[in-house]
Amino acid sequence: LHQIGELGWCEYQTTYYLYKQLLSSSFELFLGSEVMSKEARMGVPSAETDRSFFQKAKEAGVPDDFLEKVKGGLTGLVAVLDTKQEGPHFGFRFDIDALPIIEDDDSSHAPAKEGFSSQHRGTMHACAHDGHAAIGLGLACFVEENKDKLTGKYTFIFQPAEEGSRGAKAIVDKGWLDDVDYFLSGHIGVEDLAVGTISATTTQFLATTKLDVTFEGVSAHAGKKPHEGKNALLAAAEAALALQGITRHGDGTTRVNVGKLVSGSGRNIVAEQAFMEVETRGSTTDLNKYMVTEAIRKIKAAALSYDVTEKVDIVGEGIAVNSNKEWIEEVKAATEGSAFVSNVIDEAPIGASEDVAYMMKRVQDQGGLATYLLYGTPLQHGHHHKAFDFDERVLTVAVNVLMNVIAKKGCFR
Amino acid sequence: LHQIGELGWCEYQTTYYLYKQLLSSSFELFLGSEVMSKEARMGVPSAETDRSFFQKAKEAGVPDDFLEKVKGGLTGLVAVLDTKQEGPHFGFRFDIDALPIIEDDDSSHAPAKEGFSSQHRGTMHACAHDGHAAIGLGLACFVEENKDKLTGKYTFIFQPAEEGSRGAKAIVDKGWLDDVDYFLSGHIGVEDLAVGTISATTTQFLATTKLDVTFEGVSAHAGKKPHEGKNALLAAAEAALALQGITRHGDGTTRVNVGKLVSGSGRNIVAEQAFMEVETRGSTTDLNKYMVTEAIRKIKAAALSYDVTEKVDIVGEGIAVNSNKEWIEEVKAATEGSAFVSNVIDEAPIGASEDVAYMMKRVQDQGGLATYLLYGTPLQHGHHHKAFDFDERVLTVAVNVLMNVIAKKGCFR
Amino acid sequence: LHQIGELGWCEYQTTYYLYKQLLSSSFELFLGSEVMSKEARMGVPSAETDRSFFQKAKEAGVPDDFLEKVKGGLTGLVAVLDTKQEGPHFGFRFDIDALPIIEDDDSSHAPAKEGFSSQHRGTMHACAHDGHAAIGLGLACFVEENKDKLTGKYTFIFQPAEEGSRGAKAIVDKGWLDDVDYFLSGHIGVEDLAVGTISATTTQFLATTKLDVTFEGVSAHAGKKPHEGKNALLAAAEAALALQGITRHGDGTTRVNVGKLVSGSGRNIVAEQAFMEVETRGSTTDLNKYMVTEAIRKIKAAALSYDVTEKVDIVGEGIAVNSNKEWIEEVKAATEGSAFVSNVIDEAPIGASEDVAYMMKRVQDQGGLATYLLYGTPLQHGHHHKAFDFDERVLTVAVNVLMNVIAKKGCFR
Amino acid sequence: LHQIGELGWCEYQTTYYLYKQLLSSSFELFLGSEVMSKEARMGVPSAETDRSFFQKAKEAGVPDDFLEKVKGGLTGLVAVLDTKQEGPHFGFRFDIDALPIIEDDDSSHAPAKEGFSSQHRGTMHACAHDGHAAIGLGLACFVEENKDKLTGKYTFIFQPAEEGSRGAKAIVDKGWLDDVDYFLSGHIGVEDLAVGTISATTTQFLATTKLDVTFEGVSAHAGKKPHEGKNALLAAAEAALALQGITRHGDGTTRVNVGKLVSGSGRNIVAEQAFMEVETRGSTTDLNKYMVTEAIRKIKAAALSYDVTEKVDIVGEGIAVNSNKEWIEEVKAATEGSAFVSNVIDEAPIGASEDVAYMMKRVQDQGGLATYLLYGTPLQHGHHHKAFDFDERVLTVAVNVLMNVIAKKGCFR
Repeated sequence: LHQIGELGWCEYQTTYYLYKQLLSSSFELFLGSEVMSKEARMGVPSAETDRSFFQKAKEAGVPDDFLEKVKGGLTGLVAVLDTKQEGPHFGFRFDIDALPIIEDDDSSHAPAKEGFSSQHRGTMHACAHDGHAAIGLGLACFVEENKDKLTGKYTFIFQPAEEGSRGAKAIVDKGWLDDVDYFLSGHIGVEDLAVGTISATTTQFLATTKLDVTFEGVSAHAGKKPHEGKNALLAAAEAALALQGITRHGDGTTRVNVGKLVSGSGRNIVAEQAFMEVETRGSTTDLNKYMVTEAIRKIKAAALSYDVTEKVDIVGEGIAVNSNKEWIEEVKAATEGSAFVSNVIDEAPIGASEDVAYMMKRVQDQGGLATYLLYGTPLQHGHHHKAFDFDERVLTVAVNVLMNVIAKKGCFR
Repeated sequence: LHQIGELGWCEYQTTYYLYKQLLSSSFELFLGSEVMSKEARMGVPSAETDRSFFQKAKEAGVPDDFLEKVKGGLTGLVAVLDTKQEGPHFGFRFDIDALPIIEDDDSSHAPAKEGFSSQHRGTMHACAHDGHAAIGLGLACFVEENKDKLTGKYTFIFQPAEEGSRGAKAIVDKGWLDDVDYFLSGHIGVEDLAVGTISATTTQFLATTKLDVTFEGVSAHAGKKPHEGKNALLAAAEAALALQGITRHGDGTTRVNVGKLVSGSGRNIVAEQAFMEVETRGSTTDLNKYMVTEAIRKIKAAALSYDVTEKVDIVGEGIAVNSNKEWIEEVKAATEGSAFVSNVIDEAPIGASEDVAYMMKRVQDQGGLATYLLYGTPLQHGHHHKAFDFDERVLTVAVNVLMNVIAKKGCFR
Repeated sequence: LHQIGELGWCEYQTTYYLYKQLLSSSFELFLGSEVMSKEARMGVPSAETDRSFFQKAKEAGVPDDFLEKVKGGLTGLVAVLDTKQEGPHFGFRFDIDALPIIEDDDSSHAPAKEGFSSQHRGTMHACAHDGHAAIGLGLACFVEENKDKLTGKYTFIFQPAEEGSRGAKAIVDKGWLDDVDYFLSGHIGVEDLAVGTISATTTQFLATTKLDVTFEGVSAHAGKKPHEGKNALLAAAEAALALQGITRHGDGTTRVNVGKLVSGSGRNIVAEQAFMEVETRGSTTDLNKYMVTEAIRKIKAAALSYDVTEKVDIVGEGIAVNSNKEWIEEVKAATEGSAFVSNVIDEAPIGASEDVAYMMKRVQDQGGLATYLLYGTPLQHGHHHKAFDFDERVLTVAVNVLMNVIAKKGCFR
Repeated sequence: LHQIGELGWCEYQTTYYLYKQLLSSSFELFLGSEVMSKEARMGVPSAETDRSFFQKAKEAGVPDDFLEKVKGGLTGLVAVLDTKQEGPHFGFRFDIDALPIIEDDDSSHAPAKEGFSSQHRGTMHACAHDGHAAIGLGLACFVEENKDKLTGKYTFIFQPAEEGSRGAKAIVDKGWLDDVDYFLSGHIGVEDLAVGTISATTTQFLATTKLDVTFEGVSAHAGKKPHEGKNALLAAAEAALALQGITRHGDGTTRVNVGKLVSGSGRNIVAEQAFMEVETRGSTTDLNKYMVTEAIRKIKAAALSYDVTEKVDIVGEGIAVNSNKEWIEEVKAATEGSAFVSNVIDEAPIGASEDVAYMMKRVQDQGGLATYLLYGTPLQHGHHHKAFDFDERVLTVAVNVLMNVIAKKGCFR
């Protein structure tokens, strides 16, 4: 999975890999427009990016009939096993997309040393979603093997495009969470807990908005007629600095990042156009709203300063959510005595955004319970770092935790 | 020529086109490493850019044996006709490269309307170098036809990579200007004079330096650990604004432009790297030096501010030069009575950089005379504008002027 | 007290007012260098500012012999009543300085309407320290009246120069907190609780550093020789924006403010000098340290960018501290049944810096207990706003709370 | 004169000094509202500044009846000697104001060493206007002594408030230039020519606009509620950098300077207000207009960025002008053979703004001739530098030049 890391909405090989693993099981598998509302997807990549990954999948031997179902960015997979025995409906979510990062090829980086680096240069699993997908497969294997002893229904969501908070909402809109009683998801490696330590829930989900910003100016010869230009590059530079300088809010955590800036065609031409990828975050939806309002005003001001026009597109959004206390307690109780889980802490801050929040909120709105776990593993390099790597023992721990939860909920006959 | 516009050092099709036109003439043709000192080239593009244009040339049917000679960015052509009759050595220079601009496809733009827009999307002759090359061919035709009546030697230099002041020096270093007695070059459309009006010389050549700037920082998760990042994107943005703000110099004209800025991999990642294309100019070499010194300090300061490292590469350089007065007078006298030239003004400012300055200086250093003409034509859109276009009658005017100069210098037997 | 608001280390009239009120009591009064270590004072104002307030005090009739003791910024007062009966040593701290704000003269602002606005234009009690001093006097009155029934020792510290975290450390260094068993201080109006609601303790004390920054450049004629100048004003402007843009820290709350910037002598002169008042804060001492490190680097970078020199002086520092839980419980218990206190909440965030933290830490280091209360009162305008005002009933509440604590600790015979 | 340097519109002592020197002469003297149109004055200083200099003049013994005439900033003096003999009307203008600069007290600075530094700390003759006034007195002395041999009329204008282009227009509006035939003014030390070298005229007068900019925001506690503030200080900082970065114009010289920035009341308060003194210049009125348009848009953008309001006041304006060629020739001829003038160059660039342009333009509009001379003297430190000083022999040269012009014009009977 690490080797075939693909960007969000482009997980053709990854989805096929998961599909193949589950094909001979008792799980019913859903693909393409069965998985999601096509229209509710956010931040769908350019046709060019899509084509590139689609082509690679084709070249890698993913069959045409499979690709036909998922083409156009309808990646991801839902796998359902219904025991037909009365019992609760469990929902599990595993995110599967990678990041636009060039993987470290230094021999100190395990994938490089051991030869399983990303085969897609410029795309890398630097946020452990390959691990998440593997946990999903491991847990599915457990459910499959014990299906005769289990009650209730088991829905596994392998979600595309978590990065950028783009994918969850489209799946929620399709109704997959509507009758889930117990929802579990989680992340590897947050907060650098030791392997074997898990956090029964996560606090500090950050609400977030993702913005694409374009400035349009007028090009001109930079030597002869610089004054005839309207400089989109400088507008973007000024906006980037202004966004970074949005005043901290007294009521809680806020974030802003201009993660990408591309402008200009050549050194002796006043740049006509600039493009920026921006995100804001806040520890509450209101704080995030404050950041968005400030950001948009500052973008407009930068455009005014350079007499260029600006366009702001919202391409992703995430909400803030809290886990259910009673469910956390059950999760804790379930792991008691486990040989793999040495320590369960009550909560750990994630300090990031996770579009799983949309799923959790839908479950809670329907009367179900939801939590988001953290599986400890020490990290030498943080998430989204080009040399990100995790201790693979954490996969066993995670699968074990989820197995125990299923067992504890009395689902065995 | 407009349709096959190619970036500097990538003029494979253009060079071949010129080569073909002159192949059956009496001109001796020189290609590849005969034309230039390979090492003295500045601002050679990336292997990828080179490959792309090389491939297009191949696909367009440029023969392999020709491409073999010019591959690796050894584009451009020198054509020499030696009458073997005692007489002066004339040098003419025509620049042939295009710009990284997406051509306007609006029907108000003549090439779009008449169907001869650039076939290389993103590359465009927006500085009339296609016209310059055409003037060169026209003049070569005249010399060819009248070769029996001419004395002396005629060297035509079709120079690659003028944009960015990258190409002239490599040709000078090869010695082509070393024994030129009379040197002429020129530009279409500068200063918006009417068709038929020419300027016998140009003032205000700006000395220039072209800089590639790279900032290297550290990536990090923008939500969770923003403080662990070292933000190269913001360093570049701050540098861009600081460069724009370099204090005007009391002694004369200065310019600065950040024409390109590319940074970052994704919106939720602190950008690890940033790249900028920068140029400075000055009406004297000292003023340009002032700008470069200030620019480098400001780039260092921006790096310090964001705790990133910076690298500055000089990828192009142009000097300031003046035309020879006696030669200007002769040029003026030569065009007197021409049916095509209605008005000759003494001088017009170019207000830009032209690496022809290296050639003029070499000619002058060896005792020759040099000038740089401007051929008037009204422009609706300035040079380097996506809808740049010129009145084609200016080509006839220009060829006529140069013909008259040859005639006037008593070169006819 | 509101009318005679004075800046930190300049509280000549305020100190005299307090002194007069307590003169005929049984409290032993300490002034000048008895109160503080002169050398440990931070952020002592300019001689000119000091002289101005000193002169006003003189003109207002403060006697010369009193002024002699406190002159040179040795303001503030310690009042001690020792019952000579065995019992605990109570320490109370009330801060007494005002802020450099021009008070609102709109009739909607009570002091303006009722004619008790600040008589010192440009200086205003916009942080309720006048109220704090009044609470101190009220409590002292209670102690005085009940001195025969009390045991133990009562130290009242009326502290100068709290704003800017400048005054507490100098008093701590003099030893006044060294044998305090129970320490109480508090603030009016934080977090907009209703009158009658108090918070038994405060969380989120922010560690802070106060920096004075000076840039020195070179002046020049802005029209003729702008390039000969080294622009200190622009260095300061760039530093201000860069400081504002220091990256948020993933581990907690940070703050930065450039509250003052003064630069330049005239519009046609390149500014030779610039001065800035800056502060950083962090929810832990480490987070504040991060901010200071970043700030200093950015200040150096701005200096480098404009080729000027920079000087950074640390003129104030505050630490982070926590209240003692057992003491909070006792305070809560003490107010139970009070007619004035309708509601006691466990804790409220202050989200600000308070140099009382130095006092609390000293008390705790010596084995004593300390807390910092908040006295609720709705605020129409936040602290440090020119129309800041509070409901005066909060004074009664505050005195009552402190009285109850004294009573509850069994200090009555 | 150097010792009593006073800011523009505050030249009470200076005017009185000149008045006293000329009182016993045959010149008719005009003061106060006779000299200028009160309403046409630009950039009148604050009442406080005016009061301060007025008070100093009073303390220095300037008589009350004199002060009565000039009070309220009606400084400056016109002295007219009419020979009643038919002949041309000569106009001479000498500017008399000093600059807000703290004079260097290093012993390498002659006024410091020789004990004639400015007695008004913070105000300094760093632009040689003390020399100009002295030249005026010297020339007046010559006219007085030779009045029986002269024909025509001699108007001496001692103009206040040249710095900031504030004073000339008000005098022009009063009509003093309306029937002047020959107008002469000049400057010491521009372009660093040797003593004895003068320039018969000046080129490159820059048109200029002087702007006062105020930003109004909202103050707030920088620790607790930073988001409630609207930061005027940062708006000003951003505006200052943006102004500095206004794109150079391809058609000629432009300038911009933020010479003063004052903002904020204290370090822990979000700054509510900011004030900036700004000027723009251009080698033509159009170029200056371009700068003003850009400046105002950038100021508005900075206000928008920080959600504050902005106010822009035009407080001074200067135009561009050219000297009359025939008059320059006469001036050159007049100095031929002078023992004091070793060299007359045709023209030298001033590269600055001079509100004498208003006077020259009025003279020319009425059919008169005008020029502006430069009197060479080497300068160790440029104009507006705190250690500016000039070789006093230049005064003799200047007076001699003007005497010769009077003589040459055949004005002696």
